[in-house]
Amino acid sequence: LRSAEILAVGSELLTPFRTDTNSLLITSRLNDLGVEVIAKSVVADHAATLQAALRLALSRADIVVTSGGLGPTDDDLTRDAIAAVAGREQVEQPSVVAAIEARFASRGWKMPENNRRQAMVPVGADTLDNPNGTAPGLWLRHDGRVIVALPGPPREMTPMWDTHVAPRLAALTGAGMLRRRLIKIAGRGESHVDEIAAPIYRRWTTAPVPIATTILASPGQVELHLSAYGEDRAALDQVLDQAVSELTTALGSAVYSTDGRDLEQVVADRLLALGATVAAAESCTGGLLMGRLTSVPGSSRWLTGGIVAYDNSVKVNDLDVADSTLSEHGAVSEPVAVAMARGVRRRMRATFGIGITGIAGPDGGTDAKPVGTVVICVCGPNDDEVVVKTVRLPGERAMVRRLSVQTALDMLRRACGSPDYN
Amino acid sequence: LRSAEILAVGSELLTPFRTDTNSLLITSRLNDLGVEVIAKSVVADHAATLQAALRLALSRADIVVTSGGLGPTDDDLTRDAIAAVAGREQVEQPSVVAAIEARFASRGWKMPENNRRQAMVPVGADTLDNPNGTAPGLWLRHDGRVIVALPGPPREMTPMWDTHVAPRLAALTGAGMLRRRLIKIAGRGESHVDEIAAPIYRRWTTAPVPIATTILASPGQVELHLSAYGEDRAALDQVLDQAVSELTTALGSAVYSTDGRDLEQVVADRLLALGATVAAAESCTGGLLMGRLTSVPGSSRWLTGGIVAYDNSVKVNDLDVADSTLSEHGAVSEPVAVAMARGVRRRMRATFGIGITGIAGPDGGTDAKPVGTVVICVCGPNDDEVVVKTVRLPGERAMVRRLSVQTALDMLRRACGSPDYN
Repeated sequence: LRSAEILAVGSELLTPFRTDTNSLLITSRLNDLGVEVIAKSVVADHAATLQAALRLALSRADIVVTSGGLGPTDDDLTRDAIAAVAGREQVEQPSVVAAIEARFASRGWKMPENNRRQAMVPVGADTLDNPNGTAPGLWLRHDGRVIVALPGPPREMTPMWDTHVAPRLAALTGAGMLRRRLIKIAGRGESHVDEIAAPIYRRWTTAPVPIATTILASPGQVELHLSAYGEDRAALDQVLDQAVSELTTALGSAVYSTDGRDLEQVVADRLLALGATVAAAESCTGGLLMGRLTSVPGSSRWLTGGIVAYDNSVKVNDLDVADSTLSEHGAVSEPVAVAMARGVRRRMRATFGIGITGIAGPDGGTDAKPVGTVVICVCGPNDDEVVVKTVRLPGERAMVRRLSVQTALDMLRRACGSPDYN
Repeated sequence: LRSAEILAVGSELLTPFRTDTNSLLITSRLNDLGVEVIAKSVVADHAATLQAALRLALSRADIVVTSGGLGPTDDDLTRDAIAAVAGREQVEQPSVVAAIEARFASRGWKMPENNRRQAMVPVGADTLDNPNGTAPGLWLRHDGRVIVALPGPPREMTPMWDTHVAPRLAALTGAGMLRRRLIKIAGRGESHVDEIAAPIYRRWTTAPVPIATTILASPGQVELHLSAYGEDRAALDQVLDQAVSELTTALGSAVYSTDGRDLEQVVADRLLALGATVAAAESCTGGLLMGRLTSVPGSSRWLTGGIVAYDNSVKVNDLDVADSTLSEHGAVSEPVAVAMARGVRRRMRATFGIGITGIAGPDGGTDAKPVGTVVICVCGPNDDEVVVKTVRLPGERAMVRRLSVQTALDMLRRACGSPDYN
């Protein structure tokens, strides 16, 4: 059993407002077992459409997984469609009726007659317990295929997959497993990373234990996903660890994590290890940097506070930026960014101070300082240790702000990770 | 032509990391023409799988739209699959070759021989110009159906839909059109809104011009989407405007927009109209409120600045919260939130001041003040005008912070929209 197809059932998933995301989790779990997803579909709550989709899936995939359509109403057609396509009668299963009745009784309610439909089971199918809802799942072996039917809500579906489906599938797919690694990189573009990484990872595709590498870019960040399939966990891990080590050596300090941690968590851990704190003065990012730093639980231990200095008077009064610095160099300038970083560091009594000033747009750009011009300063642990950088960031307002935050975080990471403080 | 099926082509859309989102835009555009999407699929770059998906789609949908798989490489199989399923030869179209050559020439490059594949066109199909890429789209009438093939990148696909596909489809679907309205609501839960709205919108489903209503909830926000289909634009608009008016009357001040504006934009517009400004002091939200306010272009006209007061010493030194207030009531208390709002309003010379202090978790909760306890104060235009609210917000850290920001924004909206200032 090496191929799978996923069907999401529900007319609400065919509107412009929603999309199926269950299939991402299911895909990830199937990949872990070495199973490849060859197609996925979203189908309306419509008997013929659903049956046709099931038939097509069974004609080409070893495993067919459905999510949704197991509820008690007339719109819930997955059970009937599976029974029809597999040519099985449905029989009411008393143990399921009892479980649903018990679920209602525990809240002091009587089971509505509707819910009895959820206890209908195609002959030969096993039901899968659902601790978080009334709809049991179904497991059916048919014609050498496996059909798995799960409810749509992720909080019902996910634990059912892990408890019931994963072990049953593992027994059928054999001892094979997929092991993964993730390398996270900041401050380098996708093509730059690929230029360095491709000559390395290309060799692995034909190695005795082949490694598949996927490069994924999001604003200000590049991820390298490595995976290897086999039966010997230790051997896979050894090959992958060696691969990670080769790539991180080649990519150098641009790699900020190989253990899944995100950039703000890496910064948090370094600050904690140093016993250091940080404060930020933000102009164009308007609080987003601090918002991201404080998304880390326990951030009060290493973030003292910060100032959003939108108005120049705030830069002067609350950050001690000199009027003359502003008038000589303009609000978006290296001297102002440095003064902001120093000012907030002193005012908020922190080890490190960050200053960000820039033009996020859509207005405010000039020929000399177009939209996207952002100046970022990290200073500390004493005022003389200053790193300041002027960047030209691409994109619209939201993108410029997001990239500014990412750049500032990465500068802070490098500042508090440098040998002097580590 | 009233039903459609959408196929997204590409193996990368079958990994755990990516998902098809083109279909959301295509669905929205099809709905505008009164066309319903009955199924959608993602298929691998695999000839047989793609052909089977096309055949199934053509067996039940009037319109089949594909995105992706039109590139120049061997992996790009959509053209071949359409030709095979429709039983058409492919012929190289010299005008397309010329267009691709010109595109490369404009950058001083020669067209790679590979790209010639993109000029192969199934007999009877029209090509659709792609101003943002080399892959032209295809339009093919076959057996009473319409097949539309578009490239995958949204920046290529979207303008091609609007320029070429929409007018061609409109000519076939007739004069029918879908008109929509959107009502945005803050400060009420989904079930509360539905309790008020359902008795009203249920009547509309059987009205002479029926209105379809969808209720969509996200954290701290509920949206009512109304749509009506017909041929007479003025009549549809009149019915929908009347419906919006009925619902907004019933829902009262919880409705913050009926014109698509989001909450921060509504707040921005009200502040601008008043000639007022705002400053914020944030503890548990750590800058997220200001980050959201400053996402509005031009926010420097009405946001002076703010302080992230994570450390109690910042609350005392930079917001003038009295030591005694902190020690008597604790950092998460109404007196502290009020003092923070007043302090930041004075310090930052703003019309309105906002103070937020709370326990976002995962640590820091007590029996009296569990995780999710958040106190929010809006004060202004003079220090005596104070609204303060203690809320218990559900969810994890990120959710508590997000809901805190939403609640504060809504309190600010009400404060600056009250008759006194309007």
